[in-house]
Amino acid sequence: MKSIGKKRWAIAEGYIPAQSTGTTRQLRSHETACLLNASDQDAHVEITIFYKDRDPGGPHKLTVPARRTLHQRYCDLGVAADMDYSSVIESDVPIVVQHTRLDSRKEALALLSTVAYSSD
Amino acid sequence: MKSIGKKRWAIAEGYIPAQSTGTTRQLRSHETACLLNASDQDAHVEITIFYKDRDPGGPHKLTVPARRTLHQRYCDLGVAADMDYSSVIESDVPIVVQHTRLDSRKEALALLSTVAYSSD
Amino acid sequence: MKSIGKKRWAIAEGYIPAQSTGTTRQLRSHETACLLNASDQDAHVEITIFYKDRDPGGPHKLTVPARRTLHQRYCDLGVAADMDYSSVIESDVPIVVQHTRLDSRKEALALLSTVAYSSD
Amino acid sequence: MKSIGKKRWAIAEGYIPAQSTGTTRQLRSHETACLLNASDQDAHVEITIFYKDRDPGGPHKLTVPARRTLHQRYCDLGVAADMDYSSVIESDVPIVVQHTRLDSRKEALALLSTVAYSSD
Repeated sequence: MKSIGKKRWAIAEGYIPAQSTGTTRQLRSHETACLLNASDQDAHVEITIFYKDRDPGGPHKLTVPARRTLHQRYCDLGVAADMDYSSVIESDVPIVVQHTRLDSRKEALALLSTVAYSSD
Repeated sequence: MKSIGKKRWAIAEGYIPAQSTGTTRQLRSHETACLLNASDQDAHVEITIFYKDRDPGGPHKLTVPARRTLHQRYCDLGVAADMDYSSVIESDVPIVVQHTRLDSRKEALALLSTVAYSSD
Repeated sequence: MKSIGKKRWAIAEGYIPAQSTGTTRQLRSHETACLLNASDQDAHVEITIFYKDRDPGGPHKLTVPARRTLHQRYCDLGVAADMDYSSVIESDVPIVVQHTRLDSRKEALALLSTVAYSSD
Repeated sequence: MKSIGKKRWAIAEGYIPAQSTGTTRQLRSHETACLLNASDQDAHVEITIFYKDRDPGGPHKLTVPARRTLHQRYCDLGVAADMDYSSVIESDVPIVVQHTRLDSRKEALALLSTVAYSSD
């Protein structure tokens, strides 16, 4: 398949709720960057975290293999809960990025998602 | 009406919750690719599913008739629940694609939606 | 202010839940096309509704005055509940369009929103 | 890092729920414009608010420092609750903008988010 996407992406939102009513990985509050690499080459990806009041963190390096998807949780990059942040995702091959939050602070779940902002 | 849209689309998110409190089609947990074909020609569409740790599946072929919309559920393409995936949607005429999830694991509903990423 | 936006927009999603636990206008289940006209000229807008299995409806004509926003509910255009649809929004001056659903079938609320797909 | 984003953005949605079940800043109903400035220069930002039936308000001026994110709540700009609005965000350096609402009118939370519409 022909590759699809861009090499630079940004997600201006970023907030991991500090509480969870769920205890499983599926139901704990979390934020995810969904990374699709539809190309025939592995994607070497760097994620930089931007904060409100201190210098950026990272870049966190990861690989999305050719023709694979990776749903990367921000907590697994060490991003703390209950703090505003943003992120920039850079890749050496075109990828597609979508941002999702699951908020389980209450027994009922809340979800948000958006395609990220892409750039050449 | 003049056609609107693009011929290649990607949705990096993809996750069908494994449980549902609702039993009707409307209230079961599901994910949908909403496909709008505003053009005067039928759209022949192929949906390829990307996984975390195995080769892509499909393409699943379907037709969106001229001047019609089709809200295609991923479970009806055979996509399993409780597993990360992404999808690429390719059409022979311009279409518009939006991604939606209904999560009814809890009695309360949660929703997410985003326009998909489009490409020429 | 310089105008911002595009003249053609599409929303591939479309579904008005058939039930509401709320009885006020704010809490009844609904879908809205939010239309921003930041320009100095009134925007003459036409909304066409696309269905799964019948010919498109409309166009529904409305005016968004210069430097004003209009949050147009689809039910107020006569769109029925519990039925898949899509919409195309065309304007004679550039506007910006965002799609939102409030689902109050359960006592808890669910929300989705996305910027629409834009085209020249 | 090379800057990413655009200088003009619009969010056609805008509605702050008038009630909140939560009493903390985290759990009160609110809407936010998340502003990411990944560039090496401070971003001088102006936010203009558009209404249904009166002239635009603002611009509200704020600064997003170089390599920082700012999650700006609309209530902190004086935007009233229970009223439809839209906003245009203009910056002197490229930024990325995402729009989020938390609705806590019910004990359960509801969330929506989307990347804003961007323009040169």
